[in-house]
Amino acid sequence: MRIVGIRHKDESVLVGFLSDNGAEVTVSTDVDTFWASPAEYLAAEPAGPTLAVADVELVPPVVKSARVVCVGLNYQDHVAEGSFRDEELPEFPTLFARWATSLSTDGSEVPVPSDEDGLDWEGEVVAWVGQTLVDATAEEALAAVVGYSTFNDITSRRAQKRTSQWIMGKNGDRSGPLGPMVPAAEVGDLRDGLKVETRVNGEVVQHGSTAQMIYGVGETLAHISRTFTLNPGDLLATGTPSGVGYARTPPWLLHPGDVVEVEVERLGTVTNRIVDNANRHLAAATTR
Amino acid sequence: MRIVGIRHKDESVLVGFLSDNGAEVTVSTDVDTFWASPAEYLAAEPAGPTLAVADVELVPPVVKSARVVCVGLNYQDHVAEGSFRDEELPEFPTLFARWATSLSTDGSEVPVPSDEDGLDWEGEVVAWVGQTLVDATAEEALAAVVGYSTFNDITSRRAQKRTSQWIMGKNGDRSGPLGPMVPAAEVGDLRDGLKVETRVNGEVVQHGSTAQMIYGVGETLAHISRTFTLNPGDLLATGTPSGVGYARTPPWLLHPGDVVEVEVERLGTVTNRIVDNANRHLAAATTR
Repeated sequence: MRIVGIRHKDESVLVGFLSDNGAEVTVSTDVDTFWASPAEYLAAEPAGPTLAVADVELVPPVVKSARVVCVGLNYQDHVAEGSFRDEELPEFPTLFARWATSLSTDGSEVPVPSDEDGLDWEGEVVAWVGQTLVDATAEEALAAVVGYSTFNDITSRRAQKRTSQWIMGKNGDRSGPLGPMVPAAEVGDLRDGLKVETRVNGEVVQHGSTAQMIYGVGETLAHISRTFTLNPGDLLATGTPSGVGYARTPPWLLHPGDVVEVEVERLGTVTNRIVDNANRHLAAATTR
Repeated sequence: MRIVGIRHKDESVLVGFLSDNGAEVTVSTDVDTFWASPAEYLAAEPAGPTLAVADVELVPPVVKSARVVCVGLNYQDHVAEGSFRDEELPEFPTLFARWATSLSTDGSEVPVPSDEDGLDWEGEVVAWVGQTLVDATAEEALAAVVGYSTFNDITSRRAQKRTSQWIMGKNGDRSGPLGPMVPAAEVGDLRDGLKVETRVNGEVVQHGSTAQMIYGVGETLAHISRTFTLNPGDLLATGTPSGVGYARTPPWLLHPGDVVEVEVERLGTVTNRIVDNANRHLAAATTR
């Protein structure tokens, strides 16, 4: 089963279930109602109309207030290739923030911002929180995960590395393509190892397994819940394996015209074309 | 003029104009409509009903998708007292992220999370973005600011300092009390110097002036807009002067029962009581 968002004509977002062939989507309910009781809506037959995917705009099925908490340095081989390789691995996961505004979908065009030489890829898995979590145990937190999605944490490296704090490089326009949500019951335990593969113009650039993750989904969410309360609809981006572009010799970044794909076993593929900065001006002009 | 949010019975948020004595609020429109054309709504007589403030719940007048971009290390004397004092000041502002979920208001009770010894205060000024900004100049960006508010960037220092990334310590439940928005035209230029004062149980702990800011509001927003597009309703927290608690000898943190106030000249005061972590469990149980 694959859960998507659909932009409704009045700018609200509906949640829909994709058909197996991906050609049709059956509406469940609006996104706020869905995330008030996600397990219930996932278990029910969707009651709304069935629409042709070609006739609707797909968007991430996220509530506007969703937080995207991202784990940095969660694969040992990615730590080893990056700028933190000489530092001791902290006892706790290194967490950074994406605003949900930066999320996009399979097929979104992703612009290279003004001051960047290009964009970098980071293929990974996102976990969706389905219940309120306060001071949860790792077991409670893992049981609260209702689904997973393929994610590309596309990064503006120059903005990320300008100061000690990474968030500027992690919130570029449409820089977080997120695939449909697959219910947790169909995915199983990430510790068993789902293959994560990133391809640029067809060439494999990352090839890892979620079995390599240092901090598990349950323990990371439990850790977060000791500082702030997680809400249904919040997301955890679980980090990327090795093979990112900036750490290569010579560095390899995405330029306008390049196509980047992230494929995660059982979760599917998100494919995105890179465009130039003029696209940002165009998008702003059409929504203004 | 002071602009506040009002929680409507169906969970939506309305924007209202406070009366001079603060006892009444006149409804302008819903928060999404307001932020689609903030200058227009600020210039118009509010057309909705007038309500007693005692009868409504005040909330921040923010859209759910608002990003709160925060400047760290923006007052030289605060840089000098903190853990970055021996590092060279970067050419660009150090920016970190708050999710709007962490915002609260004057009078909100702020809980100390599980693993913290207490909370720290950071009195500051927030600027509200009123227009879409893409690759803006500093002048354009400053002209797009429609208002300012008093803000307390209450910080969980232990969570902040656990790894290289600060965001865990900056997103505690209700940890961002935000005062009413005062229109920019009534505030003038922050460079002229608004007094920023923080008091704990009546004792002055921070006393600075916005004239000391290293990076101005216009230049910071312009800088951000070169990486991601700013939207109307986004917020910029402009950083805190010296006098925070963790940098004192001995450190001084806020504990349950303490009352912290931030007062900014022309913008008013936000006052908050600190409560214990049980309050987080209570809040989660009542919203579940």
